[in-house]
Amino acid sequence: MAEMRHVWRLAKRPVGDIADSDLLYQEEALPELQDGEFLLKVGYLSLDPTNRIWMSDMEQYMPPVGINDPMRGGVVGRVVASRNPAFPEGALAAGLGEWATHMVSTGEGMSPFPEIPGISIPQAFGTFGVVGPTAYFGLLDIGQPKPGETLVVGAAAGGVGQIVGQIGKLKGCKVIGIAGGPEKCRYITQELGFDHAIDYKAEDVGAALDRLAPEGVDINFEQVGGPIMSAVVSRMKLFGRMPLCGMISGYNAIDDHEEPGRWTLILMRRLTIRGFIVTDFAARFPEAFGQLAQWMLEGKVKTRQDIRPGLEHARETVKLLYSGGNFGKLLVEVSPL
Amino acid sequence: MAEMRHVWRLAKRPVGDIADSDLLYQEEALPELQDGEFLLKVGYLSLDPTNRIWMSDMEQYMPPVGINDPMRGGVVGRVVASRNPAFPEGALAAGLGEWATHMVSTGEGMSPFPEIPGISIPQAFGTFGVVGPTAYFGLLDIGQPKPGETLVVGAAAGGVGQIVGQIGKLKGCKVIGIAGGPEKCRYITQELGFDHAIDYKAEDVGAALDRLAPEGVDINFEQVGGPIMSAVVSRMKLFGRMPLCGMISGYNAIDDHEEPGRWTLILMRRLTIRGFIVTDFAARFPEAFGQLAQWMLEGKVKTRQDIRPGLEHARETVKLLYSGGNFGKLLVEVSPL
Repeated sequence: MAEMRHVWRLAKRPVGDIADSDLLYQEEALPELQDGEFLLKVGYLSLDPTNRIWMSDMEQYMPPVGINDPMRGGVVGRVVASRNPAFPEGALAAGLGEWATHMVSTGEGMSPFPEIPGISIPQAFGTFGVVGPTAYFGLLDIGQPKPGETLVVGAAAGGVGQIVGQIGKLKGCKVIGIAGGPEKCRYITQELGFDHAIDYKAEDVGAALDRLAPEGVDINFEQVGGPIMSAVVSRMKLFGRMPLCGMISGYNAIDDHEEPGRWTLILMRRLTIRGFIVTDFAARFPEAFGQLAQWMLEGKVKTRQDIRPGLEHARETVKLLYSGGNFGKLLVEVSPL
Repeated sequence: MAEMRHVWRLAKRPVGDIADSDLLYQEEALPELQDGEFLLKVGYLSLDPTNRIWMSDMEQYMPPVGINDPMRGGVVGRVVASRNPAFPEGALAAGLGEWATHMVSTGEGMSPFPEIPGISIPQAFGTFGVVGPTAYFGLLDIGQPKPGETLVVGAAAGGVGQIVGQIGKLKGCKVIGIAGGPEKCRYITQELGFDHAIDYKAEDVGAALDRLAPEGVDINFEQVGGPIMSAVVSRMKLFGRMPLCGMISGYNAIDDHEEPGRWTLILMRRLTIRGFIVTDFAARFPEAFGQLAQWMLEGKVKTRQDIRPGLEHARETVKLLYSGGNFGKLLVEVSPL
């Protein structure tokens, strides 16, 4: 008798916010393993802002998810059957997978997942899977922080933002995080050591920056876009840098309104704006993993996960990213590891 | 009896196009030289797009010209009297000076001007003064051209553009120049060796790029802004670079309309946009001068000057830059050297 799995499939492309009829949760039989394949029992599913991009057919950096295909997502899990010697039964594996309880893989896009003593599996997966290298390369390679410089990061209590700010502190920057609500703002200043927090739900970001950083902004680590981005960009200093890895405020937008180009300001202040996707740095992931793990084990970088149980709730859970409802790296616990 | 000079002074800030009443041509007595000063008889005045910025009080990269102050401009001339041993009588000197027949200088912002056998003074001044290092550092440092890549440069028959395209060819790029009118287009392809020219006055730039560069654009050397910039940016390839040193199409604009930000495209295609002003690279000017002079003497880089006699016509002459009326680096011959 065939084994069964549950899986989310993309029924149609969302228009604006994700609707219930866009993603369907289905039970289906798993195919028999072929040579070279293995069966992964998914432990945790990573939910990331880019998921909404993959659901759409906007211009993007890899093919969108096809209609009726399983929804794509980062996963970590345990191999429960294998005809692939690189992924033996009992091993942990992680990579780009499916929103599913189980998945059959040839190993493409997957890697063995090392257990690190002192770091739990969801913490390691939540940190090293996507957000850690995004923060690490975006800030260090593109942002090039120098001691005494002023760094601003939005979505600061989210998966990427919390790490960006802590690396910024390690590099001697004055760090200002933008987050929604007093709890997140307290967390990033009191627990993570950011110098200042701006609660964008309670105060005008531009006015707060004028008060907290009258000197201007050297680095804007940008994941959000929209009017908050504009407020930061207009306060950037000469030779400022802006690593740009997301525009989450616009992912659910129906029209493709963009903030003005600020081209003249980019020229006059000699700013550098550089878009990047974490996979651009894939060849150097081991460097990021090693450094981040060391900082974590030394207690210099803390990472918080927001773990929500139940694959069946994934469609609701992913929406937290677009409403600012998550607090830390958002994961779905599919089956504890 | 005091010596006299003619000088252009900024009477008021232009609103839109430069009006006759904005710049006034005056005759006035020269002050007596103080210790440390010298008197320069101006030979050539460089007219550059940035002149219009200096007349305005928009955000800019050095203080605007003050009302009733002499208009600022690049000059080369001969020292005719000196109480400054670094600039002895008879020597050539160049730097940021005034739209004037003579000027008194302390030497600040001025340097001795070396004569290069085989390169005339106006050619050397027109090439090394501003446009050569702008093209050199913008293309090589920011654009980072690689053999086989596609480079687009606007204002391609202008001072900067002609050099950018020729360096691009030396680096093995496919070079497409955008210029106004058949004469300029013929010049950049037949005389300078660009692969293609697009006459923006006769054809749609986007459609022409689709035809000439269906592979997309790796480097957009941007000096112009506006809809032509947008047409190029929307056709940039993954990991494209855009050195941004001017937005001339907007300098006479009364409202501060900017083209849309294309932030999403910058992200998805992982573009690098970097604003720069040539003086950012001042410490490395000797490198640019040496390399450009060598290329010029070897016949690998040609530079064309558009020399207009008569300081008294400077107010009309500078307008050529904003209407596309110049053909090569625009200079005013104040008094032949």
